[in-house]
Amino acid sequence: MNTKLTIAGKSFRSRLLIGTGKFSSSQVMQETVLASESQLVTVALKRVDLKNEQHSILQGLDHDQISLLPNTSGVRNAEEAVFAAQLAREALGTNWVKVEIHPDAKYLLPDPIETLKACEKLVKLGFVVMPYIHADPVLCKRLEDVGAQCVMPLGAPIGTNKGLKTLDFLEIIIQQSTVPVIVDAGIGSPSHACQAMEIGADAVLVNTAIAISKNPIQMAKAFKIAVEAGTMAYNAKLAKTTNTPQASSPLTHFLYE
Amino acid sequence: MNTKLTIAGKSFRSRLLIGTGKFSSSQVMQETVLASESQLVTVALKRVDLKNEQHSILQGLDHDQISLLPNTSGVRNAEEAVFAAQLAREALGTNWVKVEIHPDAKYLLPDPIETLKACEKLVKLGFVVMPYIHADPVLCKRLEDVGAQCVMPLGAPIGTNKGLKTLDFLEIIIQQSTVPVIVDAGIGSPSHACQAMEIGADAVLVNTAIAISKNPIQMAKAFKIAVEAGTMAYNAKLAKTTNTPQASSPLTHFLYE
Amino acid sequence: MNTKLTIAGKSFRSRLLIGTGKFSSSQVMQETVLASESQLVTVALKRVDLKNEQHSILQGLDHDQISLLPNTSGVRNAEEAVFAAQLAREALGTNWVKVEIHPDAKYLLPDPIETLKACEKLVKLGFVVMPYIHADPVLCKRLEDVGAQCVMPLGAPIGTNKGLKTLDFLEIIIQQSTVPVIVDAGIGSPSHACQAMEIGADAVLVNTAIAISKNPIQMAKAFKIAVEAGTMAYNAKLAKTTNTPQASSPLTHFLYE
Amino acid sequence: MNTKLTIAGKSFRSRLLIGTGKFSSSQVMQETVLASESQLVTVALKRVDLKNEQHSILQGLDHDQISLLPNTSGVRNAEEAVFAAQLAREALGTNWVKVEIHPDAKYLLPDPIETLKACEKLVKLGFVVMPYIHADPVLCKRLEDVGAQCVMPLGAPIGTNKGLKTLDFLEIIIQQSTVPVIVDAGIGSPSHACQAMEIGADAVLVNTAIAISKNPIQMAKAFKIAVEAGTMAYNAKLAKTTNTPQASSPLTHFLYE
Repeated sequence: MNTKLTIAGKSFRSRLLIGTGKFSSSQVMQETVLASESQLVTVALKRVDLKNEQHSILQGLDHDQISLLPNTSGVRNAEEAVFAAQLAREALGTNWVKVEIHPDAKYLLPDPIETLKACEKLVKLGFVVMPYIHADPVLCKRLEDVGAQCVMPLGAPIGTNKGLKTLDFLEIIIQQSTVPVIVDAGIGSPSHACQAMEIGADAVLVNTAIAISKNPIQMAKAFKIAVEAGTMAYNAKLAKTTNTPQASSPLTHFLYE
Repeated sequence: MNTKLTIAGKSFRSRLLIGTGKFSSSQVMQETVLASESQLVTVALKRVDLKNEQHSILQGLDHDQISLLPNTSGVRNAEEAVFAAQLAREALGTNWVKVEIHPDAKYLLPDPIETLKACEKLVKLGFVVMPYIHADPVLCKRLEDVGAQCVMPLGAPIGTNKGLKTLDFLEIIIQQSTVPVIVDAGIGSPSHACQAMEIGADAVLVNTAIAISKNPIQMAKAFKIAVEAGTMAYNAKLAKTTNTPQASSPLTHFLYE
Repeated sequence: MNTKLTIAGKSFRSRLLIGTGKFSSSQVMQETVLASESQLVTVALKRVDLKNEQHSILQGLDHDQISLLPNTSGVRNAEEAVFAAQLAREALGTNWVKVEIHPDAKYLLPDPIETLKACEKLVKLGFVVMPYIHADPVLCKRLEDVGAQCVMPLGAPIGTNKGLKTLDFLEIIIQQSTVPVIVDAGIGSPSHACQAMEIGADAVLVNTAIAISKNPIQMAKAFKIAVEAGTMAYNAKLAKTTNTPQASSPLTHFLYE
Repeated sequence: MNTKLTIAGKSFRSRLLIGTGKFSSSQVMQETVLASESQLVTVALKRVDLKNEQHSILQGLDHDQISLLPNTSGVRNAEEAVFAAQLAREALGTNWVKVEIHPDAKYLLPDPIETLKACEKLVKLGFVVMPYIHADPVLCKRLEDVGAQCVMPLGAPIGTNKGLKTLDFLEIIIQQSTVPVIVDAGIGSPSHACQAMEIGADAVLVNTAIAISKNPIQMAKAFKIAVEAGTMAYNAKLAKTTNTPQASSPLTHFLYE
C-alpha cells in the first residue's frame, strides 16, 4: 500500500475519512475533525445553508489540508441524487460527491440500481463520484466500469457500530477492485477500522462512533492511529490464522538435562 | 484506565508485552523489541544459557527501560514450575515469573489445577507471579486470592492467531478482576490487540504474530500504536452496538423545500 | 409460519429446496432427492439434453410430488437469462425459473442490475421468477416491486459452506419482505439450515453440502429434519440472547437449612 | 457415532438431556420432558422435598424410560457437593450426579479446582459423576483421569442462550476425550444443539431455551429432532468450509453452442 491514498489523481496522507453529523455542537465537530487529521470530510447538503455564503458549519473546516466531500444523504433515487450533486457543486465549489441513495427510511440501506444510474450520469457530468453501497462485489465492478473513482461498501447497517459484518464480501471486493475501496458505515470502534485496513481496504469512513462518543476528540485520535496501525500491519503482512497451534516458546528440556 | 500499567507496584508506560520466541535471528528479535517500546519482555528459560553469564540473547535486551520476564514454558506441573522459577531467579536476578504449565503437548493449553498450585507456592517464596491460563473467570478469582499479581487469560490457543475467541469470558474476567488482566495467546493482528484494550484489558502479550511476520519491526510498531488506540478508545468510551440503525446524516428535506 | 410454503399460489409441504449438481452419479442424485422429500428441485439447463425428449436426468425426478425448477446458471446478463428461461419453458414445460446471473466467473456472485432487469422482463413474459441475489434488502424490495414471486438471498458465497455470513441483512430482508424469503448459497450444514428457519426464513436451498457429503442420502435426511426443527422453533418463539445469565436451577439453600 | 449414548455402561437412545428448572408449572414441565423423549433429566436437589416420599415434581417423571440426574446446583465447594450428592443418593436412590459448583453468584460459572476435587472424592464413594465445567481441554483430561464418566463443558454462560461461544475449545475437547462430551449451558436454539452434534459432541443438555419458550412442548420437539439432524450430519460427514467457492451448477455453454 502506498503511503498515500489517491482518488481521482488527488493524494491524501490520511486514510481516515470522517463525517460531520451527530456531534453535540459545531465547535466539538470542528475540533474533532482537526484532531482526526482527516483530509476528506463529508458534509450533508442539508446542513449547508445554500443561501448563506458564510456557512457557519463550514467555516471551521476551511483549512488547506481538508477537502469537503458533500453527500447526497436523503435522496431517494438517481434523479434526486444528480440534482443534489449539482446543488452541492454550486454551493461548495467542488465536483466531488459521495453518492448515497436510500429509499429505505428505516435502515437507510443504499439502492444498488439507482446508485449505479446516478454514478453513470454524474461521471458524464464531470463529477468525481464516490458511491456508498452494499458490500456487493459485482455491483462494485459495475460502478468501476461506469467510472466511479472509488467504491464505498458498508461494513454493517449505518449507525449500528457492529463492525465488519460483511467481511467475507469486503475481502472479495478488495481483491477485485482497481479503484480504492473505502469501508463506510458500521465501523464502531478503532479495532474495526484497524481490521478494515489489515485486510487491505484503502481507507475507512467513520462518523457515528466518533460523534456520539463521550470524548469525540480523543476517540478521533484513537481512530487515526488505529488506521495507521492497520495500514502498517497490512504492509508488514499478517501471520496466517491456523488450527495447528504452535508455542512461541520451545518446549524446554533444561529441566531434564 | 491510568496512563500506566502497574503490576506489583512497578509501573510501565507500555501496555504491550512481547515474547522473544520464533524470531529468525537474535538480531531481528532485539531490534523488534526495541521498536515495540515494550517494557516487559518474556524469555523462555530454555534460551538462557544458565552456565554462561554472558547470555547473548539477553545482552541485546539489557536496557534500562526493559524488564525481563522469564516464563516456565515447557514445564508440565507445579513442581517443575517452581523449580524453573527458582532457576530463573538465580540466572536472571528477577523474582518475576510468568507461570506457564502445559502438560498438553499438542495444543499447549494451560493446566488450571497445577497453575493455581504453583502460584500459591511461588507467592509464598516471594515471587511476583503472572499466570497464563484459560479464560476462566472463577480460576482468575482464585488466582487473585492466592496472591497472583495479574492474570493472563488466553484469547485463543497459542500460535493460532485467531484473536479474541474467548471474548464473552474475557469481559467477565475484566469486570470482576482487581488485578491487571493481560490477554495472552491467540492475538494475531493489531486489531485483536486494539479490541482487547477497548473492552478494558490492562495489557496484551504478543509473540507469534510479530515474530513470524514478514517485517517484524514494522509489525511491532503497528501493535504498539494499536494498543494505544484501544486504550484511548476505552477511555473515551465506545458507542454501543445497536440493532436500530441511525443515519449520521439527517434525512435532507432541502430537495423538497 | 404456515405449515406450507406457498409460492405463486402453489403450496409445498417441504421447505427444503435442493439442487441436482455435483452428485457422483444420477442414481445417487435421484435417491437423495427422494430421501430429502424436497418438492422443488433445481436443474441447470446445461444438464438437460434439449434435443432428447427422454432426458435421463429428469426421468428419475418424474414424481408427482416434485416440481422441477430450471435455473439459468451460466448466463452473464439479463438477455441471456431471458433466452435461457424460454428454452427451459419449452424443454421442461414449466414457466417457473430460478434466475441466476453471474458475470463473475470466480466467485459466481449474482449481478443485481441484470437480475432486476431479467426479472422484470420475465414477469411480463408470464414467468414465475425466483431470483438468486446478494442479501441486499433494498434490492429485495425492488424485485418484489417488479413481481418476483420470492427472493433468494445468499448466506455466503456459493459452495463455501460458510453458513449465514449475511445474518444481519437476512434478518432485515425477512422483516421487510411480503414474498417468501429462501436462503440460497452458503448453507453448509443442517445447523445452518435450522438457523435460517429459526430467524424466519420461509425456506432454504441446499446443494453442495448434500451432494459432496460422504453419504448424501443421510445428509439429505439430516437437512430435512433440521429444517423442520428450525420451523418449529420459529413458531414456538426462541428465547432471547442475554448478557445477564440466569441459572436454570435455583440456588439451593437445602444445605444450610 | 453409535446409535446410542453410553455413560457408565448405561445406554440411552436420546442424546438430548433436559433440565427441569424455570418451567411455568410442574404440569408443563412434565409434558415437555415427555415430548422431548429425553431419557436423562436433571433435577435440582432444592426442588426435591427430602422429607416427603411422594415428591410431586418427581412423580410425573416416574417413567421407565427416564433416569433422573440430580445436580448439586447451589453448592460452593467440593465439600458441599459431596454432601449434596449423598443426600440425593438417599432421596432419589441413584448414584448418578451432575456436579455443579459455582461460588460465583452472578455468572454461575463453575469452579475448576473444587469440581476436580469433588469428582475425585465422589468417584471413590461409588458415584457416577458428570461434571459441569468450563470448556477447558486440560481440565477435561484431568477429570477423565480421576474417573469422571463424562465431561460437560459449557457453550456459553448459563442462561444466556448465546450458543457455542467456546467452539474452538469444544473441538479440542471432543478430539481428545475418551469419555462422552455433553455440551451444557448456553444452548439457546435447536440450531446450536444441532451444531454441537455436528462437531461430534455426544449429547447436549438444554433447559432455559426450552423452559422459557412460549411453547415449551413444541420447542422440546424441535430440539429433539435438531439433535437427531446433527447426529446424522456428523455420521454422514460434513463438507469442508472453503474460501474457494464452487458453483453447484456447471457453467452452461448451451447458450453459445
